Amino acid sequence: MATTELETGLPSVRQMQTLIRESKEVELKLITNDLLTGKMSWQDQYCVCLVDHYDQPTVVWRQAIVYMKPKM
Amino acid sequence: MATTELETGLPSVRQMQTLIRESKEVELKLITNDLLTGKMSWQDQYCVCLVDHYDQPTVVWRQAIVYMKPKM
Amino acid sequence: MATTELETGLPSVRQMQTLIRESKEVELKLITNDLLTGKMSWQDQYCVCLVDHYDQPTVVWRQAIVYMKPKM
Amino acid sequence: MATTELETGLPSVRQMQTLIRESKEVELKLITNDLLTGKMSWQDQYCVCLVDHYDQPTVVWRQAIVYMKPKM
Amino acid sequence: MATTELETGLPSVRQMQTLIRESKEVELKLITNDLLTGKMSWQDQYCVCLVDHYDQPTVVWRQAIVYMKPKM
Amino acid sequence: MATTELETGLPSVRQMQTLIRESKEVELKLITNDLLTGKMSWQDQYCVCLVDHYDQPTVVWRQAIVYMKPKM
Repeated sequence: MATTELETGLPSVRQMQTLIRESKEVELKLITNDLLTGKMSWQDQYCVCLVDHYDQPTVVWRQAIVYMKPKM
Repeated sequence: MATTELETGLPSVRQMQTLIRESKEVELKLITNDLLTGKMSWQDQYCVCLVDHYDQPTVVWRQAIVYMKPKM
Repeated sequence: MATTELETGLPSVRQMQTLIRESKEVELKLITNDLLTGKMSWQDQYCVCLVDHYDQPTVVWRQAIVYMKPKM
Repeated sequence: MATTELETGLPSVRQMQTLIRESKEVELKLITNDLLTGKMSWQDQYCVCLVDHYDQPTVVWRQAIVYMKPKM
Repeated sequence: MATTELETGLPSVRQMQTLIRESKEVELKLITNDLLTGKMSWQDQYCVCLVDHYDQPTVVWRQAIVYMKPKM
Repeated sequence: MATTELETGLPSVRQMQTLIRESKEVELKLITNDLLTGKMSWQDQYCVCLVDHYDQPTVVWRQAIVYMKPKM
């Protein structure tokens, strides 16, 4: 856990900010092969938070993310 | 093991502190696909500790965490 | 997330830039054993973005990439 | 391999020191899903050493540890 | 992506340079359990490139390499 | 690839040096679940080299090592 800032100038970080602001649904594929679906509610340097249809939050560690797809 | 501080200003770290303070039950999904359930008792830069129904502690390495869900 | 620059002098980064500029199709093998196919649209320090035949973008975390093959 | 010190102030490191001093048995779950049992004999920044019932040592890389449970 | 140099003094880096210069065939075992065979054509800090019998290049991320064997 | 030294003062590094000097046989368990057996011939910051019964070397990336057992 190095003391660092979230690099808001990077495309990947900015795209997440847009998804949070617009409450868009995304699919997150994880290294365990789980596929989570929900709306992004926040991100920090270590985690992102996904809220599902029942409003339950799941805090996902970035280290475990394989890919992210905005839902069509 | 770089000498570092736990970044208490981050949402993910603060949320864990709240879970510890309130003795809330959580589910932790690990990269081995194990799903642990218990109450968070402490966190540091490398590990979090989960206590199960029999009061047995499990020290989980952060590097192995995929996601965390507060139990409803 | 250390504050860093994309090292544009490295062969691997330059090759990706060429693939983006020339809209070449690539195959990305991921640690989940998924094999994604598409055109590279951007890269930053943490992610690359792949656009498939239906123009749907997938943001792939570099940490999850195993290998990349330009499609013949 | 950055030049670093073992952070003896951290709960997770201190707990391991206690386990070593008291020759307590632990279970170590590894990312390969192996479950090793033994007594901790030393730790450094990169590894911990576990000694089994036949006094055979196993050097485990920290990067491969998922969780640790003191045996009851 | 920290700004770093390829450490050409290390045995593992030097051995790769020799394999590249001598166009030797190698086997690369990857974390997905894939076993790639080919000639090394270049290396940088993040990737190595392997060229197969049909002259098709595969860019392999170092983070995904488990072991390398020179072919006998 | 940060410019770093092999930390020869650490137990895990020293133990490897002893294994190399004494040509002891070891078992290396890897994250792919492979179990390699051989004599250690060298180590650097990123890799260790194992030589098997037919004198064939295998360069193993440290990032892929789970545990090491000296053969009895």
